Amino acid sequence: MKCIAVVMAMASEASPILTQLGAQAIPAIPLMPFKFFEADRNGCRVIVSVNGRDKRHGVDSIGTEAAALNTYVVARQYNPDLIITAGTAGGWMHRGAEIGDVYVSDQKFVHHDRRIAIPGFEEYGIGSYPAVPASGLAQALNLKLGTVTTSNSLDENDDDRRLIAKSGGVVKEMEAAAVAYVGEMLAIPVMALKAITDLVDHHTATADQFNANLLMASQRLAEKLLQVIDFCAPRSVADLG
Amino acid sequence: MKCIAVVMAMASEASPILTQLGAQAIPAIPLMPFKFFEADRNGCRVIVSVNGRDKRHGVDSIGTEAAALNTYVVARQYNPDLIITAGTAGGWMHRGAEIGDVYVSDQKFVHHDRRIAIPGFEEYGIGSYPAVPASGLAQALNLKLGTVTTSNSLDENDDDRRLIAKSGGVVKEMEAAAVAYVGEMLAIPVMALKAITDLVDHHTATADQFNANLLMASQRLAEKLLQVIDFCAPRSVADLG
Repeated sequence: MKCIAVVMAMASEASPILTQLGAQAIPAIPLMPFKFFEADRNGCRVIVSVNGRDKRHGVDSIGTEAAALNTYVVARQYNPDLIITAGTAGGWMHRGAEIGDVYVSDQKFVHHDRRIAIPGFEEYGIGSYPAVPASGLAQALNLKLGTVTTSNSLDENDDDRRLIAKSGGVVKEMEAAAVAYVGEMLAIPVMALKAITDLVDHHTATADQFNANLLMASQRLAEKLLQVIDFCAPRSVADLG
Repeated sequence: MKCIAVVMAMASEASPILTQLGAQAIPAIPLMPFKFFEADRNGCRVIVSVNGRDKRHGVDSIGTEAAALNTYVVARQYNPDLIITAGTAGGWMHRGAEIGDVYVSDQKFVHHDRRIAIPGFEEYGIGSYPAVPASGLAQALNLKLGTVTTSNSLDENDDDRRLIAKSGGVVKEMEAAAVAYVGEMLAIPVMALKAITDLVDHHTATADQFNANLLMASQRLAEKLLQVIDFCAPRSVADLG
């Protein structure tokens, strides 16, 4: 492929991969917080777009609205062959997850915080956008595979739990379904790569686990993301499954 | 003002105002579902942008991701002086709401389904984007005023209830905070105009109330929206308070 766009939410998540890629900052979009970086990897252009700092609140622009907008602008500007939504995520001990595991998206992207009990809208709320078939890539790079489920909350309440159980989600984060929603509209395939910072079914509070493991998980993510980019670059999207 | 953009989620909500404006369909953005319409009102250009039909699920593209993207593309294309997020909403009997009431946004736009228990991110999740001061407009046109609170669910669970009580939200819907988020980034003032289809604290299910009252509320919305546009057109944004 000629161009891969990597969409990331947090500066801390992006820092190690930007260093490893030797990526250079390039001009981004006026007024929007997104930060664009560019690198070349064996002739494949790699654009990393980070959601950036929210002006009002002074924190990284996490969540689905910023992710949808970032994906839209980077996809329109660079027309990538593949979009990778990369970052950190929660997993479940009862699903076999361990801190630092790196998952690649499998099957579909779903939302678990959009409950709209009207026929048609119910399914729209969940989303079910396709993930790039990537079982070959996962096997070659020793990555776990799982359905990624997205919400705008770091915690998980009973409604979330019910929807996650129904969809079979095994990787819980805050952006991927929004990236996949935009990717599908623009006819660009989407893959997620997510490193586990916290175990949802562990007794320690999610926020405490997240803060404790963010640096380590972001380094694990960078290591695997570089391998994923190098695996994808000489192949077509159809050759990742 | 020279241009007002009205962002709407559902075709049924938009139909009566498009008729009353005599609005004409104009070209929109390739691959995206948004539908643009244009009208002139006493020399003020009025752009109505409707979120449009989701290809995958065949329903209106409701919710915050579509609203953020629609607002972004219409604002970039037309650089309006004012963005109005218009549609239907829920209200509360204990706050004095009745079916068919039309509210204009007051003070701030908040989210009630973004729980991120990390300092700084907690406030980012809630949003608190400013609403255009519009007490003069509300008084002149006999509209109720209230804080608009947004989520991606039609229902309301205990977590939602807690956050709504904390913010003082009185109008509950699924797009406004996303529109206000984008408006603030692009430095364009945002106002909401919302007609009540359902009473959150009524014993009838929200979806049933919504379906029963959507047509009537959309007509009430169109009537008041036309008055709001005619009030705003000869004034500046600073003269609405």
